[in-house]
Amino acid sequence: MASPINRQIVLASRPEGGPNLANFRLVEAAVPEPRDGEVLLRTIWLSLDPYMRGRMSAAKSYAKRVEVGEVMVGGTVSKVEASRHKDFAAGDIVLSYCGWQDYGVASGEALRKLDPARAPVSTALGVLGMPGMTAYTGLKTIGQPKAGETVVVAAATGPVGSLVGQIAKLEGCRAVGIAGGAEKCRFLVEDLGFDAAVDHRVGDFAHKVKEACPDGIDVYFENVGGAVWDAVFPLLNDFARVPVCGLVAHYNDTTLPPGPDKTPALMRAVLSKRLTLRGFIVRDFAAQAPAFERNVGEWLRQGKIKYREDVVDGLEKAPEAFIGLLKGRNFGKLLVRVAPQ
Amino acid sequence: MASPINRQIVLASRPEGGPNLANFRLVEAAVPEPRDGEVLLRTIWLSLDPYMRGRMSAAKSYAKRVEVGEVMVGGTVSKVEASRHKDFAAGDIVLSYCGWQDYGVASGEALRKLDPARAPVSTALGVLGMPGMTAYTGLKTIGQPKAGETVVVAAATGPVGSLVGQIAKLEGCRAVGIAGGAEKCRFLVEDLGFDAAVDHRVGDFAHKVKEACPDGIDVYFENVGGAVWDAVFPLLNDFARVPVCGLVAHYNDTTLPPGPDKTPALMRAVLSKRLTLRGFIVRDFAAQAPAFERNVGEWLRQGKIKYREDVVDGLEKAPEAFIGLLKGRNFGKLLVRVAPQ
Repeated sequence: MASPINRQIVLASRPEGGPNLANFRLVEAAVPEPRDGEVLLRTIWLSLDPYMRGRMSAAKSYAKRVEVGEVMVGGTVSKVEASRHKDFAAGDIVLSYCGWQDYGVASGEALRKLDPARAPVSTALGVLGMPGMTAYTGLKTIGQPKAGETVVVAAATGPVGSLVGQIAKLEGCRAVGIAGGAEKCRFLVEDLGFDAAVDHRVGDFAHKVKEACPDGIDVYFENVGGAVWDAVFPLLNDFARVPVCGLVAHYNDTTLPPGPDKTPALMRAVLSKRLTLRGFIVRDFAAQAPAFERNVGEWLRQGKIKYREDVVDGLEKAPEAFIGLLKGRNFGKLLVRVAPQ
Repeated sequence: MASPINRQIVLASRPEGGPNLANFRLVEAAVPEPRDGEVLLRTIWLSLDPYMRGRMSAAKSYAKRVEVGEVMVGGTVSKVEASRHKDFAAGDIVLSYCGWQDYGVASGEALRKLDPARAPVSTALGVLGMPGMTAYTGLKTIGQPKAGETVVVAAATGPVGSLVGQIAKLEGCRAVGIAGGAEKCRFLVEDLGFDAAVDHRVGDFAHKVKEACPDGIDVYFENVGGAVWDAVFPLLNDFARVPVCGLVAHYNDTTLPPGPDKTPALMRAVLSKRLTLRGFIVRDFAAQAPAFERNVGEWLRQGKIKYREDVVDGLEKAPEAFIGLLKGRNFGKLLVRVAPQ
């Protein structure tokens, strides 16, 4: 039975630089009523992802921003509480986009039913969901790794990076992961089978990246920017491919870094090394969803790829967890358990 | 009959910043003797191209540098003076790579015989040669222009830019050229059929580019960098493609420009607009040579594309002409007539 109130976390103010708790506000609203064709959903899992930082900003980007006072957006796994859509019944578990709140209504057309017998439903927000498809499509379509090449990815224990590295291994590449701290680096090598891992917190980071890539870098899956980019850039081989998927090191920037302006050096390397830099967003590759689901689903069932979740309990914890995500504090796919399944 | 001396222009010293006349030296050497399998060539046309600036520098690039004291490299159209290769006879006109000198020897395997009845032989260094193929392959393979899109190219009266714009028109695109001075801009629109041309010497240059591209820019064929890039960059549409072919504005740079460092802004645009930046060198696309020769040759015969040459008489004028090329002083494909055909 529906709780009488719907807790929501709304954008209280736009961050200047890194978000803090004051940028969020927990409010209580009535549980909404579904209309014909809609269902009432109760959030079980809320996904927290770096892209949400962009939605908090006023700047134009590839997706609509969240306005001040609006509920924070986000992917969710939800249980159908009441249905006015013929394809859904109470108790169904669905992939939805209800955002940071206990309840939401959605058109049945916007939902995908999940089969809890097939895989834990939380994976629909991680390895079998948007982050997994981001890794798969960006690496395959833009990275185009070939056996024997070196693939580097940062935020490597996250849901995107960990899949990038594991797919690179399945393709016969050398996989090098960058992560923060010895524990994450150990996990990459010992649990996920990366060939090497480099801790970006160590002093001689750039040198360690070079040591980990004795044959240079053929694919750098860019989801970080900043110091990692600076370390990786000189190591790119001729014809290297750089799928640009995220730039979490810059999401909180309020100004450009001091000079000199390194743009001409970047462009000269693009020319003389014939680099490909290409940005993408997972929905650009929507047509690849069946191939992604088939291949990654199969690898998962065969135990060829692994995933790790970092679960935070309680909707009210979402702001703090999200702030930590932007600082690399999570270890695995960050999920908020909003209600028991 | 061979002249008794071979005038050569050698690299006297490496330039710091822009090259000057003191970086070159005219020397006289004996006319070389061809060995078995080789031919003796007399240079008729010497091509001057921006890439030569890179060969004068000590920095590592995609091609071997010219050492101090060595003859400057360059594509040539030459006449066979004496042949010790079965496929060539005295009097044949060939495409060769003899560099900045009156005579050279070359293996027959390195030469391509030209048919003066088919097209003026100088075109083998321009519209039907390396610059033309650079335009064709870079635009087709990386730019991928579609009817209705806007294609922008700088150095637009040069051999690469003028073909980029004309192919864009043949593909049904809006072609916008950037060039230095009113005369060149008039030529682009009135003679080559570009939709618009912008003079990069005018004060409100960035604003004029914006006016010339009311629907933004889908393909920017980059062969300049610098202020043109700064003007074009904000106008790039989602999914725009940037073939990076040259950066002549930066070839003389000795230091990076002052800050701030705009790299993060570039990378953010790559991500949020899903741009593709890809460097290339014409030889990467050698497999496309037959298609290039067939298509551009046919367009030329049909009068669908035009070309313009800027001819300088005398080998001794090559250094001055080359210095002018880097400053945009040429108007059309820059050629040195070393000897009469």
